[in-house]
Amino acid sequence: MRPSGRAPDQMRAISIQPAFTKHAEGSVLIGFGDTKVLVTASVEERVPPFLRGKGQGWVTAEYGMLPRATNTRGSREAAKGKQSGRTQEIQRLIGRSLRSVVDMTLLGERQITLDCDVIQADGGTRTASISGAWVALRLAIDGLLAEGKLTADPIKAQVAAISCGIYEGTPVLDLDYIEDSNAHADANFVLLSDGNIAEAQATAEGATYDEEALLRLLRLARIGCNDIFAAQLQAVRK
Amino acid sequence: MRPSGRAPDQMRAISIQPAFTKHAEGSVLIGFGDTKVLVTASVEERVPPFLRGKGQGWVTAEYGMLPRATNTRGSREAAKGKQSGRTQEIQRLIGRSLRSVVDMTLLGERQITLDCDVIQADGGTRTASISGAWVALRLAIDGLLAEGKLTADPIKAQVAAISCGIYEGTPVLDLDYIEDSNAHADANFVLLSDGNIAEAQATAEGATYDEEALLRLLRLARIGCNDIFAAQLQAVRK
Amino acid sequence: MRPSGRAPDQMRAISIQPAFTKHAEGSVLIGFGDTKVLVTASVEERVPPFLRGKGQGWVTAEYGMLPRATNTRGSREAAKGKQSGRTQEIQRLIGRSLRSVVDMTLLGERQITLDCDVIQADGGTRTASISGAWVALRLAIDGLLAEGKLTADPIKAQVAAISCGIYEGTPVLDLDYIEDSNAHADANFVLLSDGNIAEAQATAEGATYDEEALLRLLRLARIGCNDIFAAQLQAVRK
Amino acid sequence: MRPSGRAPDQMRAISIQPAFTKHAEGSVLIGFGDTKVLVTASVEERVPPFLRGKGQGWVTAEYGMLPRATNTRGSREAAKGKQSGRTQEIQRLIGRSLRSVVDMTLLGERQITLDCDVIQADGGTRTASISGAWVALRLAIDGLLAEGKLTADPIKAQVAAISCGIYEGTPVLDLDYIEDSNAHADANFVLLSDGNIAEAQATAEGATYDEEALLRLLRLARIGCNDIFAAQLQAVRK
Amino acid sequence: MRPSGRAPDQMRAISIQPAFTKHAEGSVLIGFGDTKVLVTASVEERVPPFLRGKGQGWVTAEYGMLPRATNTRGSREAAKGKQSGRTQEIQRLIGRSLRSVVDMTLLGERQITLDCDVIQADGGTRTASISGAWVALRLAIDGLLAEGKLTADPIKAQVAAISCGIYEGTPVLDLDYIEDSNAHADANFVLLSDGNIAEAQATAEGATYDEEALLRLLRLARIGCNDIFAAQLQAVRK
Amino acid sequence: MRPSGRAPDQMRAISIQPAFTKHAEGSVLIGFGDTKVLVTASVEERVPPFLRGKGQGWVTAEYGMLPRATNTRGSREAAKGKQSGRTQEIQRLIGRSLRSVVDMTLLGERQITLDCDVIQADGGTRTASISGAWVALRLAIDGLLAEGKLTADPIKAQVAAISCGIYEGTPVLDLDYIEDSNAHADANFVLLSDGNIAEAQATAEGATYDEEALLRLLRLARIGCNDIFAAQLQAVRK
Repeated sequence: MRPSGRAPDQMRAISIQPAFTKHAEGSVLIGFGDTKVLVTASVEERVPPFLRGKGQGWVTAEYGMLPRATNTRGSREAAKGKQSGRTQEIQRLIGRSLRSVVDMTLLGERQITLDCDVIQADGGTRTASISGAWVALRLAIDGLLAEGKLTADPIKAQVAAISCGIYEGTPVLDLDYIEDSNAHADANFVLLSDGNIAEAQATAEGATYDEEALLRLLRLARIGCNDIFAAQLQAVRK
Repeated sequence: MRPSGRAPDQMRAISIQPAFTKHAEGSVLIGFGDTKVLVTASVEERVPPFLRGKGQGWVTAEYGMLPRATNTRGSREAAKGKQSGRTQEIQRLIGRSLRSVVDMTLLGERQITLDCDVIQADGGTRTASISGAWVALRLAIDGLLAEGKLTADPIKAQVAAISCGIYEGTPVLDLDYIEDSNAHADANFVLLSDGNIAEAQATAEGATYDEEALLRLLRLARIGCNDIFAAQLQAVRK
Repeated sequence: MRPSGRAPDQMRAISIQPAFTKHAEGSVLIGFGDTKVLVTASVEERVPPFLRGKGQGWVTAEYGMLPRATNTRGSREAAKGKQSGRTQEIQRLIGRSLRSVVDMTLLGERQITLDCDVIQADGGTRTASISGAWVALRLAIDGLLAEGKLTADPIKAQVAAISCGIYEGTPVLDLDYIEDSNAHADANFVLLSDGNIAEAQATAEGATYDEEALLRLLRLARIGCNDIFAAQLQAVRK
Repeated sequence: MRPSGRAPDQMRAISIQPAFTKHAEGSVLIGFGDTKVLVTASVEERVPPFLRGKGQGWVTAEYGMLPRATNTRGSREAAKGKQSGRTQEIQRLIGRSLRSVVDMTLLGERQITLDCDVIQADGGTRTASISGAWVALRLAIDGLLAEGKLTADPIKAQVAAISCGIYEGTPVLDLDYIEDSNAHADANFVLLSDGNIAEAQATAEGATYDEEALLRLLRLARIGCNDIFAAQLQAVRK
Repeated sequence: MRPSGRAPDQMRAISIQPAFTKHAEGSVLIGFGDTKVLVTASVEERVPPFLRGKGQGWVTAEYGMLPRATNTRGSREAAKGKQSGRTQEIQRLIGRSLRSVVDMTLLGERQITLDCDVIQADGGTRTASISGAWVALRLAIDGLLAEGKLTADPIKAQVAAISCGIYEGTPVLDLDYIEDSNAHADANFVLLSDGNIAEAQATAEGATYDEEALLRLLRLARIGCNDIFAAQLQAVRK
Repeated sequence: MRPSGRAPDQMRAISIQPAFTKHAEGSVLIGFGDTKVLVTASVEERVPPFLRGKGQGWVTAEYGMLPRATNTRGSREAAKGKQSGRTQEIQRLIGRSLRSVVDMTLLGERQITLDCDVIQADGGTRTASISGAWVALRLAIDGLLAEGKLTADPIKAQVAAISCGIYEGTPVLDLDYIEDSNAHADANFVLLSDGNIAEAQATAEGATYDEEALLRLLRLARIGCNDIFAAQLQAVRK
């Protein structure tokens, strides 16, 4: 039995509030159960130095967690003066995941930055960030299309992410914090709406796992991502 | 005429959502119009080194702004590796303001950290932070009293803060971003519910001001803080 | 009774040595009693990026304290690798204060940096810095006028600053270190020779204060600043 | 055709020089073709704060690349003042991988740090690091057993790692730099000699991939890791 | 001919003002011509971690230059967030030089920090720092002896330092800034009053030098240090 | 007797392996006994800002030590976030030493960076670095000459460095770690093949030294450097 009473292949409730803040070109408050992440998409009419003059755009991400998003207060990275290895690893993953569905030539010489800030954490903050970032990006791109700054849609597919893990011997979908802290293996999958995989990461924690377990985790992730794809579409149609 | 059409002594709508997040001992989302600040109060059963063994507590604050809280994206302080002078100045002011209403001996050897994170900015983020921090602190202390960890209430009064300024020659209350950017003088007052002053700061911007103007700004601040005191009480009674 | 035996409205001796160092365009060693600050004004024929091509100048300030300016040695900020919040707050205040008396268009596209380094501290280092910085700035501008680089004087008025506070229940002028450490309220006023106010900051320490006290502190500050204005004029006429 | 002329399932030559340096408790220079990594294992009779008094040990890793290990000189991280996100991600992976084969209770209250420094890079530096780190760790543990500091062997299995990818549409084993720069998908697998998986990471670069490709990459990795397991054994038997 | 008209073996005027500041246990303003350095000696009743419980003391130094000590303003190291390589090299030299004349066992478990801050620079700031530091140290130790905290004098000899160099083919003593910028070789000698050498550093700039030149520079340094030894003694006898 | 049994004027075995790595324009693994340093020379077709457009080149150096190059593991400077004062002092010395033998005008507007990374340390790492750097530089310049990018050789002479010291009262050549830790004086000489001196540094450690000792150390250094000059020539002729 899972602590939450969920079935092994059952996601937590997905909530998506688009246009949560007023300044960003795209913004969303996404929730996977008690995990809440605010994602904003900021459009800037410039690209990083390594892309200047190449006629293509860039999508990047930053990630942060409010100090008391977690059960015990963590120190503020701005006050410590550096981002942790975990933060950097997560923001690199988010950026890569979103870039996998964007045609950079169609985007043109502009950069979109996806800021993912965790307001409340209960497991799965990186996957909620990726899933929410697609919505914020979609809204920002819709704005550029509406203003005529873009004439063709650079977004090739939806992208979503979900965590899975082996909890007390059973592969389960969408780990909450209690499960995550006790899982023997912890995986994150970033999947596309066209069926392809953008990223698969499965890490042993305490016990290693075999190939069948890896495949089972991937199948659970497909179930979860399909739910997220539907929720994303509903949110952007509002 | 003010850009918002408000009367010179008219505050923006005050909104206070207590218990906005689930982990913190106290939390609140406070809004002064479009300015939205999430404040959490975290209780820790330890004090900073300079207070150890002295039988008294400590209240401190940290402040941050999400990169896209503002109209154009600002860089993330955690990524830059340091907090700006402005951030440090604000968090020092918040901490000082809250300490002015707490009896540290009654609080006992524990520290309460008030994290003020600006979700959306439209002027007055430091004053909203102080006003919200009092609510988060009140909720956290109420919890300690309810659990029996405290037997006497260490909070001596309410504290609230509001900005005022001289906009196009007229002293006005609760500047929004457009007014703030164009004001000739910009003041922040931190007032107590017992009528006293915890902090008065009035800065010339573009044009200096005279003693009468300073007094007029202070009177406006009293009007505003009285509204905030009422909203604070209503929020903590929920 | 004040520890120094001074009357409540009595300043410490003001000493101003202009041209204390040989390289800077303006320099001064200013003393308020045992507080000694070396201020240099450096003229550079360039402006910060945000002002380029706008036909106006900039005045900025930096502040530092020698490690053993104080009674017990403090750590060197260069060795710690960052400036404290207090340092940043002070240097922002100094810069703002001096900018309040300069016509930036008349200054032209050049920057003047006021470096305020505390040689010996006994309370009031920020107010001595501001008061001395005006002298250093005046000397530097006089040099530019003499060289013909400026044809009209960009300095609109004198600016001076002084601290006041409530010490053992009595409002007093120009706190020394012992008073400062024990004051119930601590204020800094930056006043102009035309009677206007550039900055008023009054902070409760231990006990909050009322409106009458704020006004009394301001009146004391006027007494003190008038003395400083006279000493500044005498120094620059040498 | 691969640029190197290798078959899709063909590793580069593996070279392992144990005891490459004299001070470390274990050391090795490992080569995967032209990729050369020096790994040292340092035993310290203390554990990090979070493990003190818990009767168990810790294994951690650090990773670095000499500035001219690569084709064009990269800047020195020590001179820049921080480790890149990539560096931190890699050293976290190495640490996690090695911990997956160590019984921390049998290790006792001591820490082993695996320093992986890339002398020359031609793709696959993180997988060579993991594979070499096992040898350095094995040598260090053998020393502790020989000295009688350990009575039971805390190493549960061998661990090795290899990269695979999809290069010009074909899944291939052990990417060199040219292949790595042009691969459509890039995977790293950390496998155990008991057949289990410690870590699987497969990232789309340019084109996403499907489930069959993921499985094919995993099968290639098993081929490669079996070769590495044999080379590791041979090296430690010397 | 030297730009200053001095003979090759002629020092600039040496000025030493002891007790320049009031808080430090020892302080001095030392001048070699227009080079002015404020040195304070701070006594602390603790030693660095590596010396705890060993019954001996420590002498260390820090060095800084005010931003406008030089002809053009340099950036403030505290603002840049790190000390330059030059600064660190100089403060290591000063500390080493002073330690060469102190018996650490007689000093007991206390640390003396010598802060050398350059008020005005015209060449030779490191040698003026060392020469002044001896005076500040002597004054601080005299205080400890007078208070009875020390019963035997830990200072074994005087130490002084001077720069020499080869300017337009001629070895000269005590380079000022113009000479220093154009010298073909630049040397600093730290000499003891007992005739021994604590440090010799001779660096080619533009042209290398031969053994005879090295010896000539050393002989010049002896001439200069003898003058400094006399000035030190006179200053501490006041 | 020296711990190693060497005669006072006897060097350790010098080993020089040119072309140790494949990417750098010049590279060498140099050994003085158990001290092993990898030096690479990287040619870049640009110069630092202060030299742009002046028609001359630049030679600079960086130095690092692998964490377990030493007997006990030192912390990684990249992880600590800054280079120590010792590291900076050494890399400044290496750069200066190599620049003393290069005609910057003949080098043209390009920069050569010499990265010296200590693989294993047993005393004398800075002198091995300088001596190896000359070989790496020679190889890189030979490449530029062979490619026709240079038509005249900018290298004016060989440069080598060696440490000497007074160990148990006797001046000895080429200190190993045990001697270095116990020497009463420690000197490093950087000598040119034309007989001149580029740098002489002699530091008292524990006991100061006299002029005769300085001369004896210099004579020992000449003996050692002559051996290194021969080994350098042999290495570059391969």
